[in-house]
Amino acid sequence: MTDALTIALDAMGGDLGPEAVLGAAVATLERDPHARLLLVGREEVLSGARERHAGRFGDRLGFVAASEVVAMDESPREALRRKKDSSLRVAVDLVKRGEAAACVSAGNTGALMATAKFVLKTLPGVDRPAILAPVPTVTGFTWMLDLGANVTCDAENLLQFAAMGSVVAADLGGIEAPRVGLLNVGEEDIKGNDTVREAARLIGASGLNYIGFVEGNDIFGGEVDVVVTDGFTGNIALKTMEGLARMIAGQLREEFSCTGLRRLQALAALPALRALRQRLDPRRYNGASLVGLNGIVVKSHGSADATAFANAIRVALEEARKGVPVHISRMLENQKTSCTHV
Amino acid sequence: MTDALTIALDAMGGDLGPEAVLGAAVATLERDPHARLLLVGREEVLSGARERHAGRFGDRLGFVAASEVVAMDESPREALRRKKDSSLRVAVDLVKRGEAAACVSAGNTGALMATAKFVLKTLPGVDRPAILAPVPTVTGFTWMLDLGANVTCDAENLLQFAAMGSVVAADLGGIEAPRVGLLNVGEEDIKGNDTVREAARLIGASGLNYIGFVEGNDIFGGEVDVVVTDGFTGNIALKTMEGLARMIAGQLREEFSCTGLRRLQALAALPALRALRQRLDPRRYNGASLVGLNGIVVKSHGSADATAFANAIRVALEEARKGVPVHISRMLENQKTSCTHV
Repeated sequence: MTDALTIALDAMGGDLGPEAVLGAAVATLERDPHARLLLVGREEVLSGARERHAGRFGDRLGFVAASEVVAMDESPREALRRKKDSSLRVAVDLVKRGEAAACVSAGNTGALMATAKFVLKTLPGVDRPAILAPVPTVTGFTWMLDLGANVTCDAENLLQFAAMGSVVAADLGGIEAPRVGLLNVGEEDIKGNDTVREAARLIGASGLNYIGFVEGNDIFGGEVDVVVTDGFTGNIALKTMEGLARMIAGQLREEFSCTGLRRLQALAALPALRALRQRLDPRRYNGASLVGLNGIVVKSHGSADATAFANAIRVALEEARKGVPVHISRMLENQKTSCTHV
Repeated sequence: MTDALTIALDAMGGDLGPEAVLGAAVATLERDPHARLLLVGREEVLSGARERHAGRFGDRLGFVAASEVVAMDESPREALRRKKDSSLRVAVDLVKRGEAAACVSAGNTGALMATAKFVLKTLPGVDRPAILAPVPTVTGFTWMLDLGANVTCDAENLLQFAAMGSVVAADLGGIEAPRVGLLNVGEEDIKGNDTVREAARLIGASGLNYIGFVEGNDIFGGEVDVVVTDGFTGNIALKTMEGLARMIAGQLREEFSCTGLRRLQALAALPALRALRQRLDPRRYNGASLVGLNGIVVKSHGSADATAFANAIRVALEEARKGVPVHISRMLENQKTSCTHV
């Protein structure tokens, strides 16, 4: 157990509740002998889980009581101010005290970010943490940020996002010199607003592998590894993808079930449709990273089931093993040294 | 022929060139006995078309020579300044002189907007024209603007977009009191930046059927008829949709052709797949409106084929028949009267 990594799990967050988190925890412990998990939640939830699973995993499955729960629609400020014994807060506190290497929550995104910023603080050289997630492309994934933490960003923020995204693409994606693109309304230098043009200048001079402006359709083309944008545009682009993918999946289902004959045809097409569903399954890449913090915090989608939540735990384990925050610090430190006079 | 409507077509714009425009023109004239079309382009292009089709349609197909062509990547400012005899410019001039009720071009979007603004001017009460297009939803369409004309917008611009979008949704979509949503990163009043919050206040007090903030995924849900956003976010959202839809279509094709057996299964699934393709076919809703101008200008997608371009012509005819610019003027005039003290 010397190389075991402990991850704290907010058992109360998300739309599906503790059962999804517990299912994900069991799957993770079965798969990964070096993982140790701490379930954080209300005593009555924990006692049930303890009875059913504790014997089986020994001290690889721990329990930490937290008496409160942050609601999905609660104001982040209120949650931070009033709910000091919420499962979300206690999970982040465990990271702060070094009792967990990372934490995962499917709860209220704003409250998680506000709590993480307050408790863990940002890394030196980071003005604003960001939300980063992988997006599927024709060849694999691209890492996109910010997905909603910062509705307005200046050029310096975008430069820091580019650096943090490059670290995650390298650490989690195994990409040597990640290609960084800045999301814009055209590829020519003159396109966009003052902020993106200034950010282009800064990123271009930073030593990162900057490939220039990219457009919305380029996200999926496999020719960019890190897509940098402000949290307003990034959040809207991400949710637009979610909505469109859901609509297409629904229409595919409808077309294959509108008549008895179509249902028979669907049976024949099942292998291909299953393969497609697996390729596009958002559970396979669930787990957004809150980057720029002095600690590792992973946000699972609110609607995550056990499979999806298990993937978010995998992301947290991977970031902890690779030491993403240390790498981000080092990257920003290097940039500061090399770009003082930009 | 008293009620014939004349539409000027830029025959030189777009990636597929004059053949797509000519094919669309022929299809339109065959289908719509009240349409009259003017093909605008280089003499050598027109003479070929004249030989093949003029006899058949009589004076319903006219030809106007223009010696220059605006390149797809040409700077709008340069195109406007130097190419006064381009097909794009001459098509817009025909609208200005009242010789055409509308014009359609698949050419350079920036040049088309710059030329249209310069030649036609904006309507009284409109600070900035916008690009508007229908986006498919689970129940039909939603009209979204701005899709890229204005990379920065203030709250007053967004209010005007809401009014113009409502007119188009009513005139082209037949919707009585179009539900207007403002694109944001969350639905709560406190979400977003100062501009969208101020715009929410203005639109809420305008008398339009304002339903509040909507998120990226809500675009497709069928519960909003007009989605208002700035041109930076709107362009990125639109191109993100295009890119994702293309990726999913490609993956569907791949899954159904990766083995001989899968190809057989695809044959069985063909009716459903065809129906899906038809539902999602972007050619069915090709044709973005440049709204807020003192004249009707429709932008066809650069990659439009004859079917897609014909749809853009249909949009232009429909806007001309309904009198969209007059309705926009009247709507903004009413708003001004009723909202002076907002």
